[in-house]
Amino acid sequence: MSGVTARARTPATNALREIQAPVNDRLEEVVVEMQRIATDDLPLIREVSGHLLQMRGKMFRPTLALLSSAAAGQPEARAITLAASVELMHLATLVHDDSVDHSVLRRGLPTVNSLFSHQVSVIMGDFLYTRALMALVRMGDLEIMKIVADVANELTIGEMRQLSAVDALNFSEDDYYHLIRAKTASLMSGACESGALCGAAQFREPLAHFGDRLGMAFQIADDILDYTEDQSVTGKPGGLDLREHKVSLPLIAALPRVSAAGRTRIDELFATEAPDDELLADVIGIVSDAGGIEYSRRRGEQFAHDAEQALRVLPESPARAALTDSIAYVMDRRS
Amino acid sequence: MSGVTARARTPATNALREIQAPVNDRLEEVVVEMQRIATDDLPLIREVSGHLLQMRGKMFRPTLALLSSAAAGQPEARAITLAASVELMHLATLVHDDSVDHSVLRRGLPTVNSLFSHQVSVIMGDFLYTRALMALVRMGDLEIMKIVADVANELTIGEMRQLSAVDALNFSEDDYYHLIRAKTASLMSGACESGALCGAAQFREPLAHFGDRLGMAFQIADDILDYTEDQSVTGKPGGLDLREHKVSLPLIAALPRVSAAGRTRIDELFATEAPDDELLADVIGIVSDAGGIEYSRRRGEQFAHDAEQALRVLPESPARAALTDSIAYVMDRRS
Repeated sequence: MSGVTARARTPATNALREIQAPVNDRLEEVVVEMQRIATDDLPLIREVSGHLLQMRGKMFRPTLALLSSAAAGQPEARAITLAASVELMHLATLVHDDSVDHSVLRRGLPTVNSLFSHQVSVIMGDFLYTRALMALVRMGDLEIMKIVADVANELTIGEMRQLSAVDALNFSEDDYYHLIRAKTASLMSGACESGALCGAAQFREPLAHFGDRLGMAFQIADDILDYTEDQSVTGKPGGLDLREHKVSLPLIAALPRVSAAGRTRIDELFATEAPDDELLADVIGIVSDAGGIEYSRRRGEQFAHDAEQALRVLPESPARAALTDSIAYVMDRRS
Repeated sequence: MSGVTARARTPATNALREIQAPVNDRLEEVVVEMQRIATDDLPLIREVSGHLLQMRGKMFRPTLALLSSAAAGQPEARAITLAASVELMHLATLVHDDSVDHSVLRRGLPTVNSLFSHQVSVIMGDFLYTRALMALVRMGDLEIMKIVADVANELTIGEMRQLSAVDALNFSEDDYYHLIRAKTASLMSGACESGALCGAAQFREPLAHFGDRLGMAFQIADDILDYTEDQSVTGKPGGLDLREHKVSLPLIAALPRVSAAGRTRIDELFATEAPDDELLADVIGIVSDAGGIEYSRRRGEQFAHDAEQALRVLPESPARAALTDSIAYVMDRRS
């Protein structure tokens, strides 16, 4: 699956290659299956689908599904279709998210809304989603359908939570966990749980639990990166989320601990429509000094620890080892 | 086709009331079920759902599903959930269509995109759709799931067909039937077919066929109205579709028969970004004089006739009588 990891250069993507090693052949089959599911005679659909499959990402969720299906040693063939459907659903939500956010680039390629149109992106999201559903229905497993339908709905609730967070600075730590569970952890948990039903059904619950905790750790790591990444790598202030007035764990954790002066500066940022780099860098510094990033790291590590614990009931296997490695990957990744 | 056209003077809404009479109590249950399926703790979701359920339309598709479930005399209780899910799916597509078209009003009330935001409408469409899906999965009937998933995908393909029809004046009669089958007939057929599976499974095929033909007649009648309605009622030219350069059957049928001067005028309309009322009225007259509306009526009547034929294998019942009446309703309606 060099196509999937070809762009790998950082340690995290090397780690990803190792995680994917036990399922590499099957990941290639997943890509073919995704193409089969998402194509159509209509030239416009073929064109957009082709573009989307070209910009496919690291295939992390299909990897989780395939590894989970192998956790008892005998993965079923239908795990391929399941993994393809899960990734297409993920792709559908990304297409709608980009449309909603008016994003221009995703994974270094133009988004559907920027390359085609807003209309095409709304309808193509629906197309991908319903095609994934058709493939799942044809698998004929109502338990899997139930998991996937619930997750698909959770994802929309996560988005709605984000859209309705008007009083950003009153967003509590619990609100935050609710949000990231819905928007990130639910799909990772669903990928693991439905994957388990394709060959390792006896480990359905621990794998669902593992996916949930992994997803929580994943999103917290992502939200920490927004405070740390650009600064260390490029010297420029990061804070894309902050710039858009999105509140995540580092800020939530810092708020009760900042000085009055710090709080004034934070309020200023949230009252400024387009905060400049200086203000952003200041607030990032304030959050960091108040221990917001450190606190978030500790919470992320707790979720990672829980994820690892969940795997303990699984028998030793390359799949279990790779799932364990995926925790470190999630904690260390830089993009 | 006299059976169908005999009621030509009955006001369409009275006709609808008669059609719904055999399932009136159950339609009320469907509304309650829709509320149950589409609500959530999140205030923003509750608010948007409430608005959408308030603007619910004539409940024509749930009516078809309920009548179909009663075609053998013993409708199952789960037909309620099915009918509610079908209508919620329909509502989800309307929300996305309005978002894509930037429509301001629907059924006399503000659209979700105009009342809330574009973002909210994209995500709420997804929410409604996935909630409908969750309800269907819990019914536990894979055949029904298959019908609904296929229809949901057909609807997106219909939308994509519409978005990709760039060379409007080369749109053929076959292209048109493909389009309206995907965007209209598929859901009516699916409502009847899945309804049949809730109590009248032996009539699944004729009811699916009936729904398809009814849907084709429905969309043709709709497209004719765009050429005739406002003119007769208000004296103003109609032609909303024409104004947006959407080609439908009346124009397709007229094109080979118009004079060179007529064709020039039509080309002019399609080359004008915002055609004025005079140009629209001219083209409507040209299409009408060339027999485009008359031709469309005849094609609509053929589909209506096929729909009526499809019902002949059903035993006599109030449900069958109402389904037959629904054909006249579709042909006569004014909105």
